[in-house]
Amino acid sequence: MPPARPAPPVVTLTTDFGTADSYVAQMKGVLLAACPGVTVVDVTHAVGRHDVARGAEVLDEAAWVFPEESVHVAVVDPGVGSARAVVAVEAGRRFFVGPDNGLFSRVLARHDAEAVVRLENAAFRRPFVSGTFHGRDVMAPAAAALARRADIDLLGPRLKASDLVTLPPRRAESGNGGFVARIVHVDRFGNAVTDLDAGQLGEGTVVTAAVVEDLEGIATRLGVVGHYAEAATGAAVTLIGSGGKFEVAVREGSAAERFGLTAGDVVKFETRTN
Amino acid sequence: MPPARPAPPVVTLTTDFGTADSYVAQMKGVLLAACPGVTVVDVTHAVGRHDVARGAEVLDEAAWVFPEESVHVAVVDPGVGSARAVVAVEAGRRFFVGPDNGLFSRVLARHDAEAVVRLENAAFRRPFVSGTFHGRDVMAPAAAALARRADIDLLGPRLKASDLVTLPPRRAESGNGGFVARIVHVDRFGNAVTDLDAGQLGEGTVVTAAVVEDLEGIATRLGVVGHYAEAATGAAVTLIGSGGKFEVAVREGSAAERFGLTAGDVVKFETRTN
Amino acid sequence: MPPARPAPPVVTLTTDFGTADSYVAQMKGVLLAACPGVTVVDVTHAVGRHDVARGAEVLDEAAWVFPEESVHVAVVDPGVGSARAVVAVEAGRRFFVGPDNGLFSRVLARHDAEAVVRLENAAFRRPFVSGTFHGRDVMAPAAAALARRADIDLLGPRLKASDLVTLPPRRAESGNGGFVARIVHVDRFGNAVTDLDAGQLGEGTVVTAAVVEDLEGIATRLGVVGHYAEAATGAAVTLIGSGGKFEVAVREGSAAERFGLTAGDVVKFETRTN
Repeated sequence: MPPARPAPPVVTLTTDFGTADSYVAQMKGVLLAACPGVTVVDVTHAVGRHDVARGAEVLDEAAWVFPEESVHVAVVDPGVGSARAVVAVEAGRRFFVGPDNGLFSRVLARHDAEAVVRLENAAFRRPFVSGTFHGRDVMAPAAAALARRADIDLLGPRLKASDLVTLPPRRAESGNGGFVARIVHVDRFGNAVTDLDAGQLGEGTVVTAAVVEDLEGIATRLGVVGHYAEAATGAAVTLIGSGGKFEVAVREGSAAERFGLTAGDVVKFETRTN
Repeated sequence: MPPARPAPPVVTLTTDFGTADSYVAQMKGVLLAACPGVTVVDVTHAVGRHDVARGAEVLDEAAWVFPEESVHVAVVDPGVGSARAVVAVEAGRRFFVGPDNGLFSRVLARHDAEAVVRLENAAFRRPFVSGTFHGRDVMAPAAAALARRADIDLLGPRLKASDLVTLPPRRAESGNGGFVARIVHVDRFGNAVTDLDAGQLGEGTVVTAAVVEDLEGIATRLGVVGHYAEAATGAAVTLIGSGGKFEVAVREGSAAERFGLTAGDVVKFETRTN
Repeated sequence: MPPARPAPPVVTLTTDFGTADSYVAQMKGVLLAACPGVTVVDVTHAVGRHDVARGAEVLDEAAWVFPEESVHVAVVDPGVGSARAVVAVEAGRRFFVGPDNGLFSRVLARHDAEAVVRLENAAFRRPFVSGTFHGRDVMAPAAAALARRADIDLLGPRLKASDLVTLPPRRAESGNGGFVARIVHVDRFGNAVTDLDAGQLGEGTVVTAAVVEDLEGIATRLGVVGHYAEAATGAAVTLIGSGGKFEVAVREGSAAERFGLTAGDVVKFETRTN
């Protein structure tokens, strides 16, 4: 196989902008003008309006599979124009750019921040900064600079990582011989992803069943499988999903529809320790 | 910071094709085959079916932030296959390719056309031109040629810019000590963007309030802020949006829902001249 | 016109993942990490959940306009984690990667497979293969290798093309002086694309009319045009669409809405042979 080409820089975008308006394209235009040849990738623009918690989750799901030195821009920013800082963060050999409102809570739970700066240097902003679109006027130019391998300290003064806004952790609670988990996301397939991470189980501990309640309060106990195809078509099961978290799924169906599940609902997991 | 890389050509796409069908991908395939290495960026494919006016607006919102020499292809083309011309236009150091049906009215209101040609040269069309998909068979090959820096005159004969189809201007009307504006677009956040451009205010004139009517005809007077975060959560205000136009917004809410606003509705602006 | 640049490799993605979750982005991250500089293009991610037949159609619509040596990854994979094979196929000077469940039936009806391999070589998988996301863990790494011009035989052992799962052909049936066709897809414009391919008509045979039935069983006979603009605004017609198949369309309207048409409905075509 021939050697890999030299890697062009990569910038990803995670926003609540949708794709019907031109906002995403405007950010890409700024990136391409300031960093010719950059590869820009959409993580998603369908984060719920102002849903910082979901933005933080989806960013963490996607960020780490991208090459080292990728720059991840996240814009879920109900406070645009307020005193909230806009920051760049280096962590886990990637860069993150966005408002300081908790968006980086999940990635920073995984890798400590090596550097945090506040984006204040006017040389890395657009000449006219609007009051309503810092994604285009502040974040995209800073991301372009990082993509061109500018020193992060050029962008503004250092902040302490401990001063960043942080969302409360989202982890299932252990107790009663198992875990009480909550659904953090329902995906397009109707799989209900919970906050029970496979890494939370102690050594030798395995999940033996999940218990969900439908809208009428009727509980169903679900067996554990390794992948969807181990279940019979139409059967509800629990398994470790692609992000390492337990999810509730119906083979070739929708667990969310079957049980009326939405984000925030409780799922109980039973465990056994050998 | 290291020097910028040599810039690969950039082509953007603005269509009413949606993203569920393969039409957009087919255009990208033609572009990549005819211009290897081109960077193709989606502006949006969610323009309403055959809504040329909205296509013209969104193209103008996005076009100018992209690098000089970018090629912007717009396909909102109810007349595909009719006698309407397909054209390439050079204006403001960018290129525009699409049907001659008014799609370029907004960009050409901002920068005069330096050249307009009718896409007639068969060497820059696909060998078989379908009756229904000129975006793929005529526009994409021409855009690829422009992206490769072909002389625009290779594509076909010159037209006069004044012969292009032009939409009526969309500008708020002044009168009664203020402006009578209309909503041109409601974005994903429920912000209602009007046709009052900040540049229309004379020197020393400022907007002091906006007045909107809800569905029951009850008028509300809204104060002016510099950005969303100056308003209390849930408060309705007016401000200059990121495109330079006054919009009606509700902080962390939807102005469109609050007042039942849709495109075409009237918003009155009160002004004061010092 | 300057010569074309050397072509970076192209990988396309066709999935039923939607764009609200991070699944598509995760595949792109793997591709960019394993094949720096690759151009990744979305065909569509809006294939109906587990709708292998639609995935096969849309892949065939898009694949051939991309440059030779492009790698097309398709993931509509209700059997993920089961014993179904994951394969790479070379055909028509392009590569195809995905589950062996019929997804390649339409492209292989057009060009014979030159090579088929089963993706078993662990060197071209991610180190940890999840039970639920082979698109990321198996298909994307293999696609990246093919994009880097790895020999297809490095990826795993050969299979016979005749052993691949194949969907039944979708072609209108001739009879009664015409064809009985079925609608295979309704596009965003409400055009109802049928399975009558223009290539099925014998030499000298032309379609003279299409007959559709609305929801109340009332039949309407539609004339044939060369393109939409030959019809009066609001008129229903039939014509050869951009993919070479006859479709039912309403100029500047929706044929699907007019007649209540959905995939699977019958359209009869009358022909005349000179």
